[in-house]
Amino acid sequence: MSTSPSKQLETFPNPRVGRAYEIRFECPEFTCLCPKTGQPDFATIRIRYVPQATCVELKSLKLYLWSFRQEGHFHEAVTNQILDELVAATRPRSMTVEGDFMVRGGIHTVVTASFEDDASVNPVERGDVFLR
Amino acid sequence: MSTSPSKQLETFPNPRVGRAYEIRFECPEFTCLCPKTGQPDFATIRIRYVPQATCVELKSLKLYLWSFRQEGHFHEAVTNQILDELVAATRPRSMTVEGDFMVRGGIHTVVTASFEDDASVNPVERGDVFLR
Amino acid sequence: MSTSPSKQLETFPNPRVGRAYEIRFECPEFTCLCPKTGQPDFATIRIRYVPQATCVELKSLKLYLWSFRQEGHFHEAVTNQILDELVAATRPRSMTVEGDFMVRGGIHTVVTASFEDDASVNPVERGDVFLR
Amino acid sequence: MSTSPSKQLETFPNPRVGRAYEIRFECPEFTCLCPKTGQPDFATIRIRYVPQATCVELKSLKLYLWSFRQEGHFHEAVTNQILDELVAATRPRSMTVEGDFMVRGGIHTVVTASFEDDASVNPVERGDVFLR
Amino acid sequence: MSTSPSKQLETFPNPRVGRAYEIRFECPEFTCLCPKTGQPDFATIRIRYVPQATCVELKSLKLYLWSFRQEGHFHEAVTNQILDELVAATRPRSMTVEGDFMVRGGIHTVVTASFEDDASVNPVERGDVFLR
Amino acid sequence: MSTSPSKQLETFPNPRVGRAYEIRFECPEFTCLCPKTGQPDFATIRIRYVPQATCVELKSLKLYLWSFRQEGHFHEAVTNQILDELVAATRPRSMTVEGDFMVRGGIHTVVTASFEDDASVNPVERGDVFLR
Amino acid sequence: MSTSPSKQLETFPNPRVGRAYEIRFECPEFTCLCPKTGQPDFATIRIRYVPQATCVELKSLKLYLWSFRQEGHFHEAVTNQILDELVAATRPRSMTVEGDFMVRGGIHTVVTASFEDDASVNPVERGDVFLR
Amino acid sequence: MSTSPSKQLETFPNPRVGRAYEIRFECPEFTCLCPKTGQPDFATIRIRYVPQATCVELKSLKLYLWSFRQEGHFHEAVTNQILDELVAATRPRSMTVEGDFMVRGGIHTVVTASFEDDASVNPVERGDVFLR
Amino acid sequence: MSTSPSKQLETFPNPRVGRAYEIRFECPEFTCLCPKTGQPDFATIRIRYVPQATCVELKSLKLYLWSFRQEGHFHEAVTNQILDELVAATRPRSMTVEGDFMVRGGIHTVVTASFEDDASVNPVERGDVFLR
Amino acid sequence: MSTSPSKQLETFPNPRVGRAYEIRFECPEFTCLCPKTGQPDFATIRIRYVPQATCVELKSLKLYLWSFRQEGHFHEAVTNQILDELVAATRPRSMTVEGDFMVRGGIHTVVTASFEDDASVNPVERGDVFLR
Repeated sequence: MSTSPSKQLETFPNPRVGRAYEIRFECPEFTCLCPKTGQPDFATIRIRYVPQATCVELKSLKLYLWSFRQEGHFHEAVTNQILDELVAATRPRSMTVEGDFMVRGGIHTVVTASFEDDASVNPVERGDVFLR
Repeated sequence: MSTSPSKQLETFPNPRVGRAYEIRFECPEFTCLCPKTGQPDFATIRIRYVPQATCVELKSLKLYLWSFRQEGHFHEAVTNQILDELVAATRPRSMTVEGDFMVRGGIHTVVTASFEDDASVNPVERGDVFLR
Repeated sequence: MSTSPSKQLETFPNPRVGRAYEIRFECPEFTCLCPKTGQPDFATIRIRYVPQATCVELKSLKLYLWSFRQEGHFHEAVTNQILDELVAATRPRSMTVEGDFMVRGGIHTVVTASFEDDASVNPVERGDVFLR
Repeated sequence: MSTSPSKQLETFPNPRVGRAYEIRFECPEFTCLCPKTGQPDFATIRIRYVPQATCVELKSLKLYLWSFRQEGHFHEAVTNQILDELVAATRPRSMTVEGDFMVRGGIHTVVTASFEDDASVNPVERGDVFLR
Repeated sequence: MSTSPSKQLETFPNPRVGRAYEIRFECPEFTCLCPKTGQPDFATIRIRYVPQATCVELKSLKLYLWSFRQEGHFHEAVTNQILDELVAATRPRSMTVEGDFMVRGGIHTVVTASFEDDASVNPVERGDVFLR
Repeated sequence: MSTSPSKQLETFPNPRVGRAYEIRFECPEFTCLCPKTGQPDFATIRIRYVPQATCVELKSLKLYLWSFRQEGHFHEAVTNQILDELVAATRPRSMTVEGDFMVRGGIHTVVTASFEDDASVNPVERGDVFLR
Repeated sequence: MSTSPSKQLETFPNPRVGRAYEIRFECPEFTCLCPKTGQPDFATIRIRYVPQATCVELKSLKLYLWSFRQEGHFHEAVTNQILDELVAATRPRSMTVEGDFMVRGGIHTVVTASFEDDASVNPVERGDVFLR
Repeated sequence: MSTSPSKQLETFPNPRVGRAYEIRFECPEFTCLCPKTGQPDFATIRIRYVPQATCVELKSLKLYLWSFRQEGHFHEAVTNQILDELVAATRPRSMTVEGDFMVRGGIHTVVTASFEDDASVNPVERGDVFLR
Repeated sequence: MSTSPSKQLETFPNPRVGRAYEIRFECPEFTCLCPKTGQPDFATIRIRYVPQATCVELKSLKLYLWSFRQEGHFHEAVTNQILDELVAATRPRSMTVEGDFMVRGGIHTVVTASFEDDASVNPVERGDVFLR
Repeated sequence: MSTSPSKQLETFPNPRVGRAYEIRFECPEFTCLCPKTGQPDFATIRIRYVPQATCVELKSLKLYLWSFRQEGHFHEAVTNQILDELVAATRPRSMTVEGDFMVRGGIHTVVTASFEDDASVNPVERGDVFLR
């Protein structure tokens, strides 16, 4: 696997296919550019998903998030795009992506988008089963 | 777009219309005046909404909140007014506005008001799907 | 309005009658006396309610809480009394009062009492719609 | 009332019988002995209950918890025993006892046990009605 | 009982069989190796379960977690394996295992897997009954 | 000893006269009245001293702080008065009293006053020897 | 005393002239305008001083800080101006003013300026004598 | 070594005699009895020392602190006694013991006592060389 | 002033030349590249300085930090370079730059470099005069 | 450079030799074995140093700390050994190593050891020049 930015998300077979379990990532090192001003934006990207046949490979996820570094993106659009591309690559039972952007104009913005595969049964996706 | 206070909220087309996703803003720089004493009040305004056809533009939101600076408003009324005006401007699936006001008379006050468009389907609006 | 302790709770008309929205107060400056020993007790009183026709006026609430200063009250009883008197004065859709008392005998006590007007519809009163 | 350790839990009449309200205690000063090694164990005991006819008296609760000081108890058993004895003494609508034990073998253990009186109606016992 | 690493989980009879109560462990001292690079990984393992006939013995749990020290394991697989082996050893009503792994590639990963015995009734397993 | 408010501070002989060691008290349950408005003020009183021949008795300190409950005092004056009266009663090597008052007019006030007995040698009174 | 914004700082006689003690204020409700853009700025102003003959009156301090609300000021200049004007009004032994401004351009700015009256002896002004 | 409470503190040779380095212990599991009422007291004991020829052995320290469990001790006296006995057993270059006792009468008490061997050179004992 | 990345730091005249006061910036939005792997690094840059004739202009500081975005730099070198370039541009009495880098290889790195102009008198630069 | 555990610490030339600046590392992923029981110990290792001619290379530091994984070490000795070996490899102006070990026997232990090269001038090594 290369170590340059890449939109290519790699996957590996889910090691425990029969169970609806959850994987969470917190990625505080996300940056892209503002499409209007060209200035850098910074965010923490949080991903939570219940895999089906495949899991996303951690290093390819890092390179994928890196690939946005020199691209222009609006907050609302890029959060949905990351969700769409992760869903396309991994076909999960369900997935939520949260973009938590640093303050601009005195306002802190967080965008949260979710996908749910209606054909899958997903009892784990209820917030109350996770440990605090 | 001007950079003076304005009640005019601007919007842009929702980049992902088909999905019920959430946008949150935290605005700690809100101030208005007490209608009885004329003295300044300070609050953090928190906004959470699921857009339908349009999203509120971040800079116009900043100018909108600025427009209250020299106006007299009661805590309960101004929180509901911000909700009503944001709903009128953006027609969201659902929206919640919270006014978190600084201590007066030894008492800390928080007012929270919500709108839900009955015609929309909004599975995201359940508190348990957001990442912690 | 006077500035002496008073059991008289004042109200004002709810500025947004049609909406079930929430008002929260945190009052860390509550003190009364222990009915058995006469020694001072200290508590934070937290109030959360959904108004109907009237809201409680903030300054009268301060004077009302002040009125307990030289009275003897047990933790369980005084929390319920504050709820009963606030409900009688404001006739809310729903209300919760929490008395969070300082450590006595190495034990920290919190008493929480709620009222719900069965005739009102109150979808806001679900904990998951408030912003964190 | 004496001030020596005692298994005798004292009660007083619930001052607001008609209402399902909650009383919480946090007791960070609990210690007993390990039945296998005889060495001291330390825990915070948290109690939450909705009273029916009687409430537990605070000082007798302190003496009751003190009574475990020189006794040998396993974590899982002692948490359930405290719940059983408090339920027997106070006959609550519902009660939860949590034993939060200090680290042993690099592992932090928490045991949580609940009782619910099926004959009582207890709408307060839902976690979302309490103030944060 | 020996004090060397061991996959053998020991149990003892549940001291309160009739009640659906919860036991939680937090184990911040977990380490294994990355199967690809051979480098050490570190995690906090959190376990939450409602026992049926038996409870897991604390010291054997410590030795069990120790047994992974020199083994290669992927994050997703090892969390599920710990759940499977704890379920096999204790036959609980329900169990959740969370692997909270230290940052790799700027990304913090948490894996959460749950088991529920469909034949058991388990009202305690709702997140809202536990004390905060 | 009575349990009514008292300006009489009781002392006991310092159990370790030869050593310059420190005693700290944090008392979050202080209240007095505003001399101008008659309204209640609340503060946390923090006391730090190096004893000489005598130490202040804890229960008499509680009754002493209680004695301010119905008296009118300004923030700056009452903090110095507590220091003066504690110094007079205990004749310490050194003492610091801090009055940390709750918000008034949106402003949080802390007053800190110190006494040092020039005739005593007090190497402990340097901030860098206390544990964090 | 009026309740309108005023540059006039009022003082009262220091109640304990002979002692070098400290008074601290934290004022999170400061706002002024950016001189370049006219947009609002927000800051927390922290003041720490050792009085000489006079103390600053709390309500006049509130009105003084309010007086900046519609004025244009740079961060560095306004913090020094507040120090200069407070020193002129109160002639303290020493004083420090800190302006802690909200994020602009992704950068959080804090300006701290101090005054020391060389003619006064001020042993209290060493950071290590204050309680933590 | 036995596992019963013992006043006998064991030591081992300092592994790095030539260097003035620091060892800190935090022991949150200390309990003794109040000499006046016989009721339990609880404290966190913090120890910081620079060893000379010997270091205190960790398990014997645990058994030593356990030995106070059924003894009556005042806060000020027991903190000094622990310092005296640790100094006698280990002959350190310097040592500080802090007893941080749980709230009694609404007041939180901390006692801090230090020893310094005048014959030793101890540059490490300055607070500014330790990592935060 | 342009809004593109620039090594050109702009300054403005110090508004209070006669006083040694401090200006602090916290900039959590710094990113550059690893010179060995080309992968992105992220840091928070903290700057603290006492100005002499000029202050650094905030917007030019933002553009200056932006200018490192596509450049390769080692942690130790880039922190010193930022200090050197800020000192060259502003000629301060003293300045400290801290680079607080995100975790790499399980290790969190912070580099802190300081400059002091020996010809200036700088009593403010002692840590104990700043408000906490 | 290999990726297996190694006692060989690699260095690179200090990029700013003329300046006494500080480098700090926090390494929460340290584990070794107890020499008496063979059971694993876990610690966070914190390193702070002012380089002279060379700096320690980050990846070799990671491999160096890894090399203790299967070795038996006492807390006091291993902290001093890490300091001695880092000093031998990098010849710094000054260095401090802190071993912060997880709870054993209910006691949390921290060992802190420092080295100072008397021939070097090191004004940066005073705690008050670092940013908080």
